[in-house]
Amino acid sequence: MVLERVKQLAQQVSNTVAPAHPFDPLSSLEIEAAVSILRAKHGKLYYNAVTLLEPPKAEMLKWLADPETTPRPRRVADIVVITTDGKVFDGNVDLTEGKVISWKETPNVQPLITMEDLNAVEEVMRKDPKVIEQCGLVGIPAEEMHKVYCDPWTIGYDERFGNGVRLQQALMYYRPHVDDSQYTFPLDFCPIYDANKREIIHIDVPKVRRPLSKLPANNYHVQSIEEMGGYRTDIKPINITQPEGVSFKIQNRILEWQNFSVHIGFNYREGIVLNNITYFDKNENKTRPLFYRLSLAEMVVPYGNPEHPHQRKHAFDLGEYGAGYMTNSLSLGCDCKGSIHYMDAEFVNRAGAAQTIKNAICIHEEDNGILFKHTDFRDDSIIVTRARKLIISQIFTAANYEYCVYWIFHQDGTIQLEIKLTGILNTYAMNPGEDTKGWGTEVYPGVNAHNHQHLFCLRIDPNIDGPKNTIFQVDAAQGPGEVGSAENFYGNAFYAKKTKYTNPIEAMADYEGSTSRSWDIANESKINPYSHKPVAYKLVSREVPPLLPKKDSLVWKRAGFARHAVHVTKYSDEQLHPAGRHVPQTSGEPSMGLPQWINANPQAKIDNEDIVLWHTFGLTHFPAPEDYPIMPAEPMSLLLRPRHFFLRNPALDVPPSYARTPSQIAAGKNGCNCKDKASVQV
Amino acid sequence: MVLERVKQLAQQVSNTVAPAHPFDPLSSLEIEAAVSILRAKHGKLYYNAVTLLEPPKAEMLKWLADPETTPRPRRVADIVVITTDGKVFDGNVDLTEGKVISWKETPNVQPLITMEDLNAVEEVMRKDPKVIEQCGLVGIPAEEMHKVYCDPWTIGYDERFGNGVRLQQALMYYRPHVDDSQYTFPLDFCPIYDANKREIIHIDVPKVRRPLSKLPANNYHVQSIEEMGGYRTDIKPINITQPEGVSFKIQNRILEWQNFSVHIGFNYREGIVLNNITYFDKNENKTRPLFYRLSLAEMVVPYGNPEHPHQRKHAFDLGEYGAGYMTNSLSLGCDCKGSIHYMDAEFVNRAGAAQTIKNAICIHEEDNGILFKHTDFRDDSIIVTRARKLIISQIFTAANYEYCVYWIFHQDGTIQLEIKLTGILNTYAMNPGEDTKGWGTEVYPGVNAHNHQHLFCLRIDPNIDGPKNTIFQVDAAQGPGEVGSAENFYGNAFYAKKTKYTNPIEAMADYEGSTSRSWDIANESKINPYSHKPVAYKLVSREVPPLLPKKDSLVWKRAGFARHAVHVTKYSDEQLHPAGRHVPQTSGEPSMGLPQWINANPQAKIDNEDIVLWHTFGLTHFPAPEDYPIMPAEPMSLLLRPRHFFLRNPALDVPPSYARTPSQIAAGKNGCNCKDKASVQV
Repeated sequence: MVLERVKQLAQQVSNTVAPAHPFDPLSSLEIEAAVSILRAKHGKLYYNAVTLLEPPKAEMLKWLADPETTPRPRRVADIVVITTDGKVFDGNVDLTEGKVISWKETPNVQPLITMEDLNAVEEVMRKDPKVIEQCGLVGIPAEEMHKVYCDPWTIGYDERFGNGVRLQQALMYYRPHVDDSQYTFPLDFCPIYDANKREIIHIDVPKVRRPLSKLPANNYHVQSIEEMGGYRTDIKPINITQPEGVSFKIQNRILEWQNFSVHIGFNYREGIVLNNITYFDKNENKTRPLFYRLSLAEMVVPYGNPEHPHQRKHAFDLGEYGAGYMTNSLSLGCDCKGSIHYMDAEFVNRAGAAQTIKNAICIHEEDNGILFKHTDFRDDSIIVTRARKLIISQIFTAANYEYCVYWIFHQDGTIQLEIKLTGILNTYAMNPGEDTKGWGTEVYPGVNAHNHQHLFCLRIDPNIDGPKNTIFQVDAAQGPGEVGSAENFYGNAFYAKKTKYTNPIEAMADYEGSTSRSWDIANESKINPYSHKPVAYKLVSREVPPLLPKKDSLVWKRAGFARHAVHVTKYSDEQLHPAGRHVPQTSGEPSMGLPQWINANPQAKIDNEDIVLWHTFGLTHFPAPEDYPIMPAEPMSLLLRPRHFFLRNPALDVPPSYARTPSQIAAGKNGCNCKDKASVQV
Repeated sequence: MVLERVKQLAQQVSNTVAPAHPFDPLSSLEIEAAVSILRAKHGKLYYNAVTLLEPPKAEMLKWLADPETTPRPRRVADIVVITTDGKVFDGNVDLTEGKVISWKETPNVQPLITMEDLNAVEEVMRKDPKVIEQCGLVGIPAEEMHKVYCDPWTIGYDERFGNGVRLQQALMYYRPHVDDSQYTFPLDFCPIYDANKREIIHIDVPKVRRPLSKLPANNYHVQSIEEMGGYRTDIKPINITQPEGVSFKIQNRILEWQNFSVHIGFNYREGIVLNNITYFDKNENKTRPLFYRLSLAEMVVPYGNPEHPHQRKHAFDLGEYGAGYMTNSLSLGCDCKGSIHYMDAEFVNRAGAAQTIKNAICIHEEDNGILFKHTDFRDDSIIVTRARKLIISQIFTAANYEYCVYWIFHQDGTIQLEIKLTGILNTYAMNPGEDTKGWGTEVYPGVNAHNHQHLFCLRIDPNIDGPKNTIFQVDAAQGPGEVGSAENFYGNAFYAKKTKYTNPIEAMADYEGSTSRSWDIANESKINPYSHKPVAYKLVSREVPPLLPKKDSLVWKRAGFARHAVHVTKYSDEQLHPAGRHVPQTSGEPSMGLPQWINANPQAKIDNEDIVLWHTFGLTHFPAPEDYPIMPAEPMSLLLRPRHFFLRNPALDVPPSYARTPSQIAAGKNGCNCKDKASVQV
């Protein structure tokens, strides 16, 4: 019966008219096929992840170079399960051949916490007698347990429990009314949940108790705004339309737009994955590779309150929960505006069935103001050209916070990553008059929002005119020679000081604001014929705080990737997750992921090699009342800009809105006209 | 006859139905009235500037507080002239009373170079025998002098000539065809022009000669793009419409939008000036002052090539040319898109007549993506609200470069200054195979684009709940206590370290990227009732390179404002121009403007006082071929964000696109609906 179903699914998969692109995420059918194959062999399992194992890069590069005659890389599912008795297995299933190709128990790890894992805690917590007792102590009667909520977080790492038991910590809240924002009513104790036993095994209770706030709610829902005087009525609609349609083409998951081509992948963990980004260069009359793969690979959100057990608040939202699993189903005109193309996301659930998040990815264009302009002051000759950008986006909700992720393509060849932070501050209870000691801010009476950082790790797998690339650190520097010297008489000399990274130890680098530090991802074997410099893309990133938790601290040990703004490693198919494959409950001893890989070969040659650049950026957030009860989106952004890559501005052939030359002016002719009929003067 | 005209104009001015707001720029009538009054007394003068002398702040604050009963501040014109024999006079004319109230010769200064001054040079240069001789030496025959062009720049400061003679340096170019971009054909010598004599008085000739390039042009005009394969044809229009009109109101020059009110001024020098910015706070049910005045007050563009005479390239585009005088007349749909409100700018010309730049200021709204969003993972309750921004912008052309200046207001109370750099690189000639020595980049064969910085000085005259404010430097800092200590056991403690500036010496501060340094502009006498911290606006600025020319260098001496990211001074009506009132040909001995003011009273009390915060920001530009022949716009941005200013997110009452509560979901009800009917799914 099971084997029957397996064969049937395999048949369905291979019958698909267009075979999947090797970078395509697993389809629902493929997920179910993988599960069926495993089920036939191993029976009942709890599925943590069934995702595409991307083909080995060497194989994939061959196929991309010549897809017609090269064998298509096989489809392989990368699988994590928890057995019914709580063991973790990692395995691979070859979907092309319909067989398990690896299967291994992985001891002493905890795979990430899925949405199902998260959703299981609240019900258990509400029924736990010790939790009910604690609720009573802070002023909540037992009959109000339905008003008690929790945001279940991974436990981070708690040395009392280690990683042998699968745990979550329940950050506790109360809602006077079901529609009230619970974050205004934080409770002061913290139950710990055992996911295998499905019970509360411990409660952390602070020495100083903080009874439930009796103050009014602080809400943002419609009724609350109506009660506070109602909504603004003076915002007139802005309509954005594309009557002739969009300027991009999508075939399967390959997007083409303004000379760019990119395969749009998605997985449960990183969310959007951009593969095989190329640019058609008119000058060279060829398609030039830029990046083999771009993704947000990890993040960590350390909180700055040293009081126990707040040190456990340092979520790895990607490695511990998954930016894919937590992604929103997006709505037209709410999340994105204009002419939108959506893509769905498909995941496995705990039971092994495929499930779909509709509209997980939004693809749309926006006007982007002026692309370039110049007026000649002497004759009024002019060109003004408007810019367009293309945005591939997702939004994921990590309990209280939302992360809006925008991968933005620009006509001048720039690729931008913008992240907007919104949602709700994580809050903790405080007594009237209590001193926050500077570790947090009282954003509303009785509500302490702790200081925290959002540190993201961008994984850049470059392919700048080929896979062999080199990273140069670039610092703006004063020239040699004092003022008055022959070489620098007026003292104005300055230049771009470039430092080549030759091994991963040299490449562990911090940001330096005083030199406007940036990093060139260069191909030393291809020289720009004009500037005589290697073709490159420059990483320009200005929101790069250091990890504030100290060296050898718990977070420092667990989040090795966040110790430096930049790490560089030699490419390896296995190295995707800079804090390790299984992040929850890692102790940081040893540090998983990046530090491990670098320690294994600290003198690896990384210049003119196939390399990966890991960039940690983000921001430090000291909350203020303006961030509450819901936070206005705070954007941050970084750029990958072509430098010495093109022979000239690659957007010169974007039609101008208006242009006229000196000879046209002299001849009394108009220039080419502005085409934007939708604009009006008021 | 003259007196007749004066009386007539004065009559016209006072007959104006709505009297000018005291912050309004001088109207054409007022400019002509001022000129007539002077002309009657002093005869023929060459007018350099006739602009509003803003009323003394003390007087103005009184009037703003109670405009009904307080006497209206008088209208005064601030005037700079050059006499027919080359003397400089500064004066004030009281337009209300129709009389000259001050008139004084200012020796040893040169007022800024007007567009008329700039335009005069090329014709003289072309006829100069020595220039013709030099052109011959680099390969341009005398009959081609009409193909020789120059960008006249202020001379900066040249110790050989001092400041007694009014000079410009002519950066030389050639155009094979009148429509060719001259910047591909730079000439290697540099004539110096005497504006009083109207002749070339000297030519700087380099030791190594660089003959005119014979290479093909590198153009961006329509015909050149057509010849290189034509324009892209795959960009579909994006129409942006506001069928119900805009959401702002403008009365005279006072703009009201989303609780903000701001008076929009404009002058020849700073361009846009924003006065009396206030915010209507619903919680307090009152209008709260934010900033008395915001403007770009100065900038400097030092070039990094130490070879003579390139040290002279360090334009102060505001103080030496004027962001108002150089401002573009903007076009609908080209420069700005949507429903646009324009304002004109009125200036004096050399002869003393008023002239108008139509559409000098653009005011429009844009959709700004998500303002805030939260989804509750447990029940799918949701709110998503879209943001709107209002933009007050101008674009000015400084010879080769364009600066697009966007003052952006956000619904969450944030004020953003965005600047986009576009236009054309300043270029110099180079021989085939010549080494740039790192001081520039060969962006096209024979074309050397020198390294440079764009350093802007933002003048912030705060009024955070009143004029008495204090600046705090804010650095993200690790908490005390080593890992394992009782106070910081897990090593995760961090906090916002705040340092109060009490005098201007302490307040000379640099940017520090490693602490994500920001600056709070606080009112210590008003405490946020929730957070118990002073109400404040935070300056968040991340593009803050130091001045790269060395200490005691020519640029360092002349551009005192650029020595630090931040200076703070006690307010003075006279202190508007941080590099001095008359900038051209200042030697920097002594340094004018900020260093002078600070030296005059280095221990001035600046906490809880009426103060001005001067912020220098910008970027360092190492050119690349992608920037040529015309540069894709490079944006940079800074924020003034309310922190502890409001009791809660001030944008909570912006109508959501979609919202539903847990109780609505439980009852099977829809939430409020998304109103953006213009969006479509493709």
